[in-house]
This record gives sequence, structure tokens and C-alpha cells, in this order.
Amino acid sequence: MSTSSSKVKPLLPVFQSVPGGVTAARGFRAAAVGCGIKNPENKRLDLALVVSDFPTHTEAVFTTNQVKAACVRVSAQHLREPDTRAIIVNSGNANACTGPRGITDAKEMAKLTAEAVGCRMRQVLVCSTGIIGMPMPMERLRPGIPAVAAALHAEGSDDASRAIMTSDTRPKSVSIEVPCGDGSYRIGGIAKGAGMICPNMATMLSFITTDAKLSRDDLKRAVRYAVDKSFNRITVDGDTSTNDTVIVMSNGQADAASIRRGSEDAHTFREALLHVMLELAKLIVADGERVTKFVEVRVRNARTVADARRAAEAVAKSLLCKCSFHGNDPNWGRIIHAVGYSGARLREELIDIYFGGLIACKGGLSTTTPIQELEKAVSERNVSVLIDLNLGSANYIVYTSDLSEEYVDFNASEYSAAVHAKRQRGLA
Amino acid sequence: MSTSSSKVKPLLPVFQSVPGGVTAARGFRAAAVGCGIKNPENKRLDLALVVSDFPTHTEAVFTTNQVKAACVRVSAQHLREPDTRAIIVNSGNANACTGPRGITDAKEMAKLTAEAVGCRMRQVLVCSTGIIGMPMPMERLRPGIPAVAAALHAEGSDDASRAIMTSDTRPKSVSIEVPCGDGSYRIGGIAKGAGMICPNMATMLSFITTDAKLSRDDLKRAVRYAVDKSFNRITVDGDTSTNDTVIVMSNGQADAASIRRGSEDAHTFREALLHVMLELAKLIVADGERVTKFVEVRVRNARTVADARRAAEAVAKSLLCKCSFHGNDPNWGRIIHAVGYSGARLREELIDIYFGGLIACKGGLSTTTPIQELEKAVSERNVSVLIDLNLGSANYIVYTSDLSEEYVDFNASEYSAAVHAKRQRGLA
Repeated sequence: MSTSSSKVKPLLPVFQSVPGGVTAARGFRAAAVGCGIKNPENKRLDLALVVSDFPTHTEAVFTTNQVKAACVRVSAQHLREPDTRAIIVNSGNANACTGPRGITDAKEMAKLTAEAVGCRMRQVLVCSTGIIGMPMPMERLRPGIPAVAAALHAEGSDDASRAIMTSDTRPKSVSIEVPCGDGSYRIGGIAKGAGMICPNMATMLSFITTDAKLSRDDLKRAVRYAVDKSFNRITVDGDTSTNDTVIVMSNGQADAASIRRGSEDAHTFREALLHVMLELAKLIVADGERVTKFVEVRVRNARTVADARRAAEAVAKSLLCKCSFHGNDPNWGRIIHAVGYSGARLREELIDIYFGGLIACKGGLSTTTPIQELEKAVSERNVSVLIDLNLGSANYIVYTSDLSEEYVDFNASEYSAAVHAKRQRGLA
Repeated sequence: MSTSSSKVKPLLPVFQSVPGGVTAARGFRAAAVGCGIKNPENKRLDLALVVSDFPTHTEAVFTTNQVKAACVRVSAQHLREPDTRAIIVNSGNANACTGPRGITDAKEMAKLTAEAVGCRMRQVLVCSTGIIGMPMPMERLRPGIPAVAAALHAEGSDDASRAIMTSDTRPKSVSIEVPCGDGSYRIGGIAKGAGMICPNMATMLSFITTDAKLSRDDLKRAVRYAVDKSFNRITVDGDTSTNDTVIVMSNGQADAASIRRGSEDAHTFREALLHVMLELAKLIVADGERVTKFVEVRVRNARTVADARRAAEAVAKSLLCKCSFHGNDPNWGRIIHAVGYSGARLREELIDIYFGGLIACKGGLSTTTPIQELEKAVSERNVSVLIDLNLGSANYIVYTSDLSEEYVDFNASEYSAAVHAKRQRGLA
């Protein structure tokens, strides 16, 4: 499946993939260590650090959930100061619903990181992901921070991408090189999946770096544009977690010329950033907990973009539609049903529904497309669903997954298991 | 678990349960036959008829889904005429997304029923439930209508309650007798379950009859009041199906005196109707597809009722919360997370969460209630979750279920299976 950026703007360069993830761009280093937050016995990687060795412009987008993790509150405050230099991230504990102690712990994480890398405390952003409602195991975390700082290196992205995983089955990393004038710049990032059916329902973290030279305002505009068309397409209806965070750091260390506002290069930067974010977002959906399918839900010709979005999101989060995708069932009745309750303006007799380009429903009625062909279209690992409302000209795309039996089993006893594990270790 | 009516109004009489369902009240008859709509081979009951032998006031509440089944459109039109006498209902085919032919078919069902029971076509309401997007098998349905009319009798409720079942595992019937002056009246009904996790996501049908004597206006008010506090509590956020319908017929044939507006008796009628609807609504949730638990989600002390409702519905339809209920996991972090994205106004540090009366989260933080006790509370077949926002004085209750692995398996291939079955029978 090609990205929407390449579809919408066919004249853009094809972005050249390069290795390196969050350390692909010049002047960034990363590392990870295991300090026993996930599990005191096996010391899996659970603490990551990303630093810029040069001054940065940094933009972040945080969760809209009213219940915000302590680290989100602290990072939002620190971001008001210019020149962020470091991001410290732990997995295994979300530091959410942890009260004043949680704030103290997040600040201490920033302080220890600042001391270890040699910057001010407010130049450090803090992220956490894991279980909600338990205090941070600071006694295990504290010694980890100097250790991870000592391990920083220019090829540290892979370790960092593994350290931020929770229920992810694989690390997620994307990096590209973009020609610019006589030189080029790089954009690269890592992400951890929400791991959910609706990826928005658990923590989504992504850290992106670039050595492109551009102003803070231009970076801000590009980040808003790209997040709206990527991570927000897998974040249905504001159902964000307590910890969701996307951070983009730019340090201008590339050999490319400065990107001037309104130039062709500024446009290219925006699309290149979208490319990186969209690929990361798709990796998150595809690696959702026990997911077997990646489903693109496209609504076209709605009256307004808001209508198109409502219809697409209703289908993308319908349990019944997700069950159908899982079962290779071209059940367009469930799709039209979800569109019907979505709130989008529609005329039933105008609705067409396609699976993988094959028309299953025309004007609200069943077509004669053979069921075997429709089944084949929904049997693919990548399924595309197109709903044409034939009412206006607004479009919207959402990315979702199927719902598998194993998902339920996997999600049935997280809290109890964590509490019991903690008690076995004599901590509760 | 007692009903909210008895909790809210402890001075009301305890309603006396009586047998009879939709034919418990005087002057109503019912019947059912199998005419091969569900399956041409085994002739399971799939066509039901309920009639009043006397003039009625009739009120109905139909789906708010913009995609409405043909039978819903025809019934809404017929309801504009006074004195409904009959409800004809088939299961196995929803007659939804069937275009002009669907309307013709629904009208023919009304016409044949009117001929068979001796009334005008517009005195007949038509309901259908089953798969979406396939034409009604009228050749099998037509001979069924005179047959079901010929079978009408005063103890026909049980057959009718079975005939309207689709994925329900058991028929649902509630009937009570209510003292009124020197006499009494009865209210009774049958229902079919949505069979879904969110019961609103597939068809919910309920037919209720009463021989109480009251005006059409009073009936209308009572129906609105009771539906809002019962069936709408299991119908989250307008996610209604294409076919949802609740119909209440009253024929005034009881030996009780007329119920005067604003009287104590009028109040009692309203609560009695709510009792019947709420018991039917609870039976629907408890018999949801592969459901193992009935969960009451109660939000209290919200700023407004709308806020309380948002918070309760967000928890009730959260996949992660439902998985936790299934796994006997007192995961209050997932509950506060859902409340956080619900849109309800809140202050995290004021939120308390209880399972079965035991406090799991106090002021947004974990409590010291032993995990074993919390686990025991969520291990019950009936689980109660209470979220106290401690912010205002508005309350709301929603009823939901857990999410089981078997649900997904069960819902994975409905459409394909139906199409293949149809083709095997030489019909497609």
C-alpha cells in the first residue's frame, strides 16, 4: 500500500529510506538499558534516552485525555522553555494516576537526566508507558539514568526502539533522506504501539528527529499537519490514552541549505515528515495486540470532512465490522449500519461500498459481484474498504485492524497479574 | 440486583409477577409459526403475530439509525393512524438495505396480516430482524401469515417470544399485575436481544401490551419515560441498529378504573411500565452474544446528567474495560482512562472508583483494599462498578456486559455464511 502523501502529491520525490531510526539525522545519539521496571528479574531493556548534541527546536503533541500522566504534565511544562536536549523514556510503568508523588518522580527523572547529559532540567522531556495507577519504582530507575547516558551513541536507535516496547511484538523505526538544494537532510523516528484494537486506547509514543534547518514556526506547522494526517488517523474520536506523546526535535546539523517558509523545500519537508509519521502509524496498527489484518477505511464524497471522518471512524471502531474483517467476511450490511449511526449526513440510496476495489453495495443495495471475489478481497492481509457517500466531495481515511479472539484473552487480566507479580516480589 | 425503580422509589408497590408475557393482559392474543425464513429445511419458529381484539392506543419508539429498515419506515407511517390492532414480526431477514422492493414487501406483510385478522392494513405494524441486505423470501413468508393468524390464542406469548429470537439463547418475557383501585391491570412483554457486546449494535425488538385504561397522551409520556430509563440505557450513543423497535399497545380491557392524569395511579403505571422494560432490557444484556457477565456501570456526582452519561457510556463500551470484566480483573486504571476521554468534566484527584462496593481508587489513586477482595467483587456473575466524580450531583446508570473470546469467533463470518447457505439452496 502506498502512502497517501505519494498519492496526493505525485510530483514529490520518492523518499529514500536510510537506516538509523531516531539517530539517522546528524547530531543525535540514543541508548537504552534494562533497569528492572518491566521485570526486576530479567532486566529487559526498559529505559531509553535520546539526546541532541546541538541546540534544537522541539515540538510535541500530547494526549487530549483529561486524565494525564505525571510525565505528560511535566513535559508540557518543560516544553515551554526553548532548546530541548533530551528525552528520557521508561516502559513498564505509566506514572499515571500517581498523584503528587508521580509529579515528583517525573521531575526527578528529568533532573537526573540533565545531570547525566549536562543540560538544564527543563531541557529534558519525560515519557512513561505501562501500567496505570502504580508508583514509579524509582529505586530501580535512579541508577539506570547515568547508565543509559553513559551508553549514548550514534547508532543507539535500535536499542531505544526496543526499550519503549510494551505489548508491541516488534520495534518500529522509519528513517529517510531528503535531497535539498545541493545537500540533503534526514528525518527518522521510532514509535511504540498502542497495541490496541483502537490504537488510541493505550499509550502511543513516537520520537522523531531531523537535522533539517528550519524555523520553529515552520517546524510547528509541519508537525501539526503531519500528526493530523497520520497518528490522528489511528486515534479515533479523542479516545487517547493518559500518556500519548509525539515529540519532534530538529537541530539543523544537515549539510542542506536552510528551508525558507513557503518554498518548495518547505512543502517537501512537510510531506517528508508526514511520510515518516504515517509509516510509523501504520506499523503501530499492523502490530496491534493480536492483530492479523491492516484495514484502510476510506470515505469519499461526503458533504463535509467532518462527516467523512465520522463515517470512517464509526466503521473503523465498530466491533462487528472488525469481527467481519477477521473472519474474511465481506459484510457490507455491518458497514452501512455503522455509517448509518455515525451521524454523517447520508442518503441510503446513494451509498456504494467497495472491498479491495470490488463493489459489494451499490446505491444501498446488494450487487451481483460474486461472493467468492468479495471474500478474496477481504481475505488479504491488507484490506481496503471504500465507502462512497455520493453526496459531496469531502474525503477521509482511517487505519484500523481486525479484532481477534486472542485479543480478548490477552487483555483480560493485566491489572491483577501486575499486582500479584508485584506482591510476589515483596513490593505490595 | 434490584431494579433502579425499586431503589429510586422505595414506596412503590412491589410488582407482582404473573405468567403470560405479551398475552398476560386481557384481550391480547399471539401465535408463531415456522415458515422457513431462518432456514427452509428445519422450519424453526420465525413468524410471530400479536393482536389486540379491542381498540388500542399504541406508541412506538424506532431506531435513530439513518439507515432504516423498510419495515421501520412502513410501521412509522402506519402508526400515524389510530387504533393499531396487530404486530407481525419475522426473524431471519431484517428487510434492511432492500430498496423499493423492501417497502413493497413490508406493505404486503401488513396487507396479508390485515386480511387474516380482519382489520385495515394501516392498523398493522411490521417488524423484521436478521441479516441486512437480502430481499425478503416472500414466497415462504406469504403462506405463513394466514397460518399464524389461524393459530392465535390467549397463551401464545411463549411461541411468539421464541419466534423473534435470532442469536438469543433464550426467550425473554416479563409480565406483572398492578393493583389499581378495587381492581388491577397487567403489563407484559417479550423482547429479543441485540445479542451484541453493545446491545445497540444489532436489532433490539420489544413488544409490550397492557389492559390498563389510560389516555393516549398518558401512554405516550409513560413510554418515553420508561424507554429512556431502560432500553436507552443499553443503547449507547445512538448506535442503534437499522431495525430497533419498541411497541406498546394498551386496550383498556382490565377491570381496574381509568387512570387519571397526574394521579398516584398514573405515577404507578409509569413505574410499572419501567419495571417491565428494565427487566426486559437486563435480560437482553445478560443474554448478549457469548456474554458471561452482567455489569452495572453507575456514575454519580457528575456536574450534569449529560456528563454522567458520557462517563458511564465510555466505560460501558470500552473494549479494554469489557476485557477486564471478563478476566475478573479489577483494573480501575482502564476505567479512569475511559472516563478521562469521555468528555465528562472531571478533576482527576477527586475520582473514586468502587467494584461491588469496595473502593479500588480514591482521589485518583490506588487504595489499600486487598487485591483478592477486589478480584472477588469482579468475579461475580453480576458486577457493579461505581464511579464517583465528586464534582456535582448528577447520576446515570448504564448496563453492559463483558467481552469474551467466543464473541469474536461467533461474529466473524455471518454474511458469507448466509450467502453460501442461500446459494446451496439454489436461491442466489
